Amino acid sequence: MRTVDLIRKKRDGGELAAPEIDFLVQNYTKGAIPDYQMAAFLMAVFYSNLSESEVTALTLAMLNSGERVDLSDLAGVKVDKHSTGGVGDKTSLIAAPIAAAAGVVVPMISGRGLGHTGGTLDKLEAIPGFQTRLSMEEFRGVLKNHNLSFIGQTDQIAPADKKMYALRDATACVESLPLIAASIMSKKLAEGLDGLVLDVKVGSGAFMKKQLEARRLAQLMVAIGRRMNKRVQALLTDMDQPLGYAVGNALEIMEVSQTLQNAGPTDLTQLSLELAARMINLANASRGLEAAREHADHMLRSGQAFRKFQEVIAAQGGNPDVLSQFELLPNATGAREILCPRAGYISRINAEDIGLAAVMLGAGRETMERPIDPAVGVILERKVGEKIPAGARLCTLYHTDETHLEEAAQLVEDAFHISAAPPEPRELVLEVVQ
Amino acid sequence: MRTVDLIRKKRDGGELAAPEIDFLVQNYTKGAIPDYQMAAFLMAVFYSNLSESEVTALTLAMLNSGERVDLSDLAGVKVDKHSTGGVGDKTSLIAAPIAAAAGVVVPMISGRGLGHTGGTLDKLEAIPGFQTRLSMEEFRGVLKNHNLSFIGQTDQIAPADKKMYALRDATACVESLPLIAASIMSKKLAEGLDGLVLDVKVGSGAFMKKQLEARRLAQLMVAIGRRMNKRVQALLTDMDQPLGYAVGNALEIMEVSQTLQNAGPTDLTQLSLELAARMINLANASRGLEAAREHADHMLRSGQAFRKFQEVIAAQGGNPDVLSQFELLPNATGAREILCPRAGYISRINAEDIGLAAVMLGAGRETMERPIDPAVGVILERKVGEKIPAGARLCTLYHTDETHLEEAAQLVEDAFHISAAPPEPRELVLEVVQ
Repeated sequence: MRTVDLIRKKRDGGELAAPEIDFLVQNYTKGAIPDYQMAAFLMAVFYSNLSESEVTALTLAMLNSGERVDLSDLAGVKVDKHSTGGVGDKTSLIAAPIAAAAGVVVPMISGRGLGHTGGTLDKLEAIPGFQTRLSMEEFRGVLKNHNLSFIGQTDQIAPADKKMYALRDATACVESLPLIAASIMSKKLAEGLDGLVLDVKVGSGAFMKKQLEARRLAQLMVAIGRRMNKRVQALLTDMDQPLGYAVGNALEIMEVSQTLQNAGPTDLTQLSLELAARMINLANASRGLEAAREHADHMLRSGQAFRKFQEVIAAQGGNPDVLSQFELLPNATGAREILCPRAGYISRINAEDIGLAAVMLGAGRETMERPIDPAVGVILERKVGEKIPAGARLCTLYHTDETHLEEAAQLVEDAFHISAAPPEPRELVLEVVQ
Repeated sequence: MRTVDLIRKKRDGGELAAPEIDFLVQNYTKGAIPDYQMAAFLMAVFYSNLSESEVTALTLAMLNSGERVDLSDLAGVKVDKHSTGGVGDKTSLIAAPIAAAAGVVVPMISGRGLGHTGGTLDKLEAIPGFQTRLSMEEFRGVLKNHNLSFIGQTDQIAPADKKMYALRDATACVESLPLIAASIMSKKLAEGLDGLVLDVKVGSGAFMKKQLEARRLAQLMVAIGRRMNKRVQALLTDMDQPLGYAVGNALEIMEVSQTLQNAGPTDLTQLSLELAARMINLANASRGLEAAREHADHMLRSGQAFRKFQEVIAAQGGNPDVLSQFELLPNATGAREILCPRAGYISRINAEDIGLAAVMLGAGRETMERPIDPAVGVILERKVGEKIPAGARLCTLYHTDETHLEEAAQLVEDAFHISAAPPEPRELVLEVVQ
């Protein structure tokens, strides 16, 4: 088998067999295929696409490039959720405790924020003492005792994905649906899951701006799951405005706490409940989705999900008191209010620009190496559809450093679109792919 | 300017500006852009194509990556010819002496054979003593005294092309018309030419199997020439059967000698004369193509072209007596005749297979590092359209080593197609692009 022949076959629209894809991935991972051949292959994939068989073979090859977490000795059905990334998306920190409280085992291996979107690990690390770098033994221990543990990806999981992602980033091959699907699924399936609920974000604050491509991505990931005998379903959800009101790590932990205490924003609460219900349903499909929804609702309202989150924070070295005493979280030193220039209805809030403003303040990173500031961010005061008088507050920027404050303030102000008539209401869950 | 942004722009079908292309080429040549980024860019070009402006900018950037031969102090108009490569194509060695005898200055920087096609340098080196590695001073000296000199490409000419070609070869990016056009034109225009006649081969023995893609390639190269104020025209010529009868280096030198003495095959003579006439016409367009054709014809018939070739051979250290005493050339030690299995008309001779058989015998190389055997090759006895009785000779294989002889003999036998009815006659010059 010669690499150049495999590149040519894909270039000319041919379908590669699973052993051919495995040959490329394993040899690339161990350095026997050079970056330049993989770069040419990835660009050929960008243009020529991959079939369901090919993307499944790619996922499996990437999965097999590293270790898998073996959770087979843990009792219970293992189900995780994964979001393709949005602004203000803290649903993992609400849905996972709900599902875990309902008896689902949730081995959550999460990523960090990149660009305008946040990451679950960064949010958790805003909690003083919280450890995301557990050993595999510690991870299994927390999971066993609490049904839920949060860690970051290790170097042992899908090293092919890590190497290929860095190459894609340097060669403009990121925006390829099969490559995105294989990247996500190879990491998630390495967790030893039985089921997975995917939240594919669509809209201005998501990587997928259009519902059509989000649907294709969801379909690909669901197909990979089906071919690998895993229960996978995907929700396409709206990311045309930030989810909830808080954007920024400590600010989002506060909103998570409020939501787990039944005092959170409607959109965030609804979506978290739906995701949790889907997780519960995947773990125990026989009782049906409606029963799973009731179960999720009960776990939230009864406070069991809140207590689950407190337990896991304590088990991973964090101080659970932060959930009630917000002054224990990192706090910003300054606040800048953004006022509404004229009366009207909020017709749109550009989520990507809100996310970018938060990054400017220090809440996120442009490259993986940069440190972040957990205290800063944006709190929206209004959401799409609300009627607002001139001079009312649109949002507040929380900052610790004024370097990029003016720029961020301008971006946020421009992100709010005010119109004379109320906008068409938009569904939060746009579509289910299963 | 960031490389990844330029890759993305091309990937998405955008048109790069000349400084952007120059940035890529110069930085790649000096190692500041890694192979993997250039590989991704080249694959994006494969799919997204280049506009005429872009391919001209690419040619210029590749040209500017190295040195140009400055022939401005030499009197006369400098015109070269270039063939995209065929089987039995020795027209350069006939057309160039004709044009030089007619007063055109022909600074011919040639390549070696690769795959099933032969190369002018390899053919010349079959002449004992002939030096193709002249210094630039020696090259200018021969040119000044004889209007014609043949050398190989130096490392100083278009180093970007050398590096990019090796990368394309390893990443399945060879078959891209704009990349082929820029590669050819950057090397040719580095010769300090005023004009260039291109012979774009079409058919089974050529890299371009279809007239449509050959025409596109010709149009691209002519456009590059026009945009760089050079007189460039292209002939699309038939390569569905080998040109002339001889395939193999010393064998082809013999056929060149016969042709320069008015005893060569019709197709080879006609095409060489037409190419020479076009070169003469480009050098002195005012007199018209018909006058140029008469001039070329006279140079051949009068023996002046033959004497020109003798002079140049002697000037470059070779023994011109080889042109009349063929026993002075390397000679094969064995011959294998291939007989016609049944009576009929020769409807087709697959030129690529004849070329590959010659390579198997040692006349060519699969990779640039291999030595070649100048003595071996194939002499056709019949050409397409001829009526042939059963048992008559189709061709003879000349060999010095029997290792691959059977395989080559089988390939050659299968290359001849015999039919009951005579085939449609085919034009040698299919089209002129100017």
